[in-house]
Amino acid sequence: MRFVSYRAGVTPGWGVLVGAEGVVDSRQLGSQLPSTLREFIALSATQPNLMADVKARATAATPTRLDAVTLAPCVPQPGKIICLGVNYYDHAKEGGNAIADYPAFFLRCETSLLAHGAPLQVPAISDKLDFEAELAVVIGQRTRFVSEADALKSVFGYACFNDASLRDYQRRTTQWTIGKNFDATGGFGPSLVTPDELPPGCTGLRIQSRLNGQVMQNANTTDMVFGVARTISLLSEAMTLEPGDVLVMGTPGGVGYARTPPVWMKAGDTIEIDIEGVGILSNPVTA
Amino acid sequence: MRFVSYRAGVTPGWGVLVGAEGVVDSRQLGSQLPSTLREFIALSATQPNLMADVKARATAATPTRLDAVTLAPCVPQPGKIICLGVNYYDHAKEGGNAIADYPAFFLRCETSLLAHGAPLQVPAISDKLDFEAELAVVIGQRTRFVSEADALKSVFGYACFNDASLRDYQRRTTQWTIGKNFDATGGFGPSLVTPDELPPGCTGLRIQSRLNGQVMQNANTTDMVFGVARTISLLSEAMTLEPGDVLVMGTPGGVGYARTPPVWMKAGDTIEIDIEGVGILSNPVTA
Repeated sequence: MRFVSYRAGVTPGWGVLVGAEGVVDSRQLGSQLPSTLREFIALSATQPNLMADVKARATAATPTRLDAVTLAPCVPQPGKIICLGVNYYDHAKEGGNAIADYPAFFLRCETSLLAHGAPLQVPAISDKLDFEAELAVVIGQRTRFVSEADALKSVFGYACFNDASLRDYQRRTTQWTIGKNFDATGGFGPSLVTPDELPPGCTGLRIQSRLNGQVMQNANTTDMVFGVARTISLLSEAMTLEPGDVLVMGTPGGVGYARTPPVWMKAGDTIEIDIEGVGILSNPVTA
Repeated sequence: MRFVSYRAGVTPGWGVLVGAEGVVDSRQLGSQLPSTLREFIALSATQPNLMADVKARATAATPTRLDAVTLAPCVPQPGKIICLGVNYYDHAKEGGNAIADYPAFFLRCETSLLAHGAPLQVPAISDKLDFEAELAVVIGQRTRFVSEADALKSVFGYACFNDASLRDYQRRTTQWTIGKNFDATGGFGPSLVTPDELPPGCTGLRIQSRLNGQVMQNANTTDMVFGVARTISLLSEAMTLEPGDVLVMGTPGGVGYARTPPVWMKAGDTIEIDIEGVGILSNPVTA
């Protein structure tokens, strides 16, 4: 199944994609379903038959046209958004970074999220806006001290993410956080795909970014230093992962700052993040 | 006024402190008030008379004994928690860090918060648990592109914070985030104090940490590199601050790791963060 959240159209809420151009609103999927996808994810962890019921109802329902709704980020208000830096071997090399024995975690906040199709604005105070194609993982159940072998049971679904970064602010101090948290820079969508439609841990999938149709990053999710299961297991040693939390798994080589000359996104551009089987996240860049 | 959030007792919710030992539950303060302090903060930004009404009702009401409730972190589920590193001159010096021209921002997530009085557990995987006395600032209204001169109008209140850190995890990579986000390490309380009870920007206040009664950090909030107004103004250039967001303003010198030999918090200890006029945040340390 593929889930979307939306902020206008039918009403702010969430639904299930049906075919290429339809969406079935959550209110058609069961009378007792919560109004946000985050709450639905939490509910699904406690009701074993819920996902199958929802799938059956979605298939039987009359969908709304997808273009009648305005999408929100897949999970608009997650509890936390945990990102990994330097998590592909070739990206580590292009940035002159050593491969660590532990992931370089940082956090994003919810105001930094951006919906599929929404404008990615070049901020007033920086024009060093770079793209980063990444795989997003949405957690489905409370998780603490999980082994790597069991960790994938905690996954609700996968989506595309563009960890767009203001490179000058990312490097103003030793901490990258501010350069990763400008308003509406973190593209997250278009939809949240359940694991049954994808290989375990989303390994072996082509991941690309394309700027105005030109391939800028072209790699495979197998090239991650820390895979999805290992990352969940390591995080769960330190903190409780909760339904709706998001992990953003790092970006491969080919980003704009490492090119000669550097490539920055500018008004009029279109940036796409394409992960095989997961979807294509597309955003226009505006001033 | 002094606001608290609680997770049990009357019912999970929030209230206003009355005297030294009483709390008036939000349901006694007005029939239409929201069930969480975060939502109340947002509401207060839109209703100019709300704070005065609540104060009058709190004064007239019969309080519950404060020891009948179990406190939660002041704002249990804030939108974002933005922390500053290296923001006191003497702490920068003890850590061998240069004074930057921009704050070293990092984020905490909500699972890292800890209530006043709750046990601060030494994690299973690290015993390098250090204290950091800090001033927390809770934002009261949506804020974007605000000048330093106007920035304090965005503040709803102030509280004590213990930015307790696992120093080995903080230094496993260049990014401090994981060492700052272990479950239930960030003490936040006991209460949220409105600005009318404090000097503008909380300047000129003694800030201390005490470990088992012994003073470990002893400084003044005037010694911050970036003050509250400047920090809000800088952040608002990059992102929208929202009601209930929390800023954690960095810690002065005297932390455990910089001592010879280092001092780590261990089971049986009591750690207190004391900010003049703001309150005393106290937590027992457990295994």
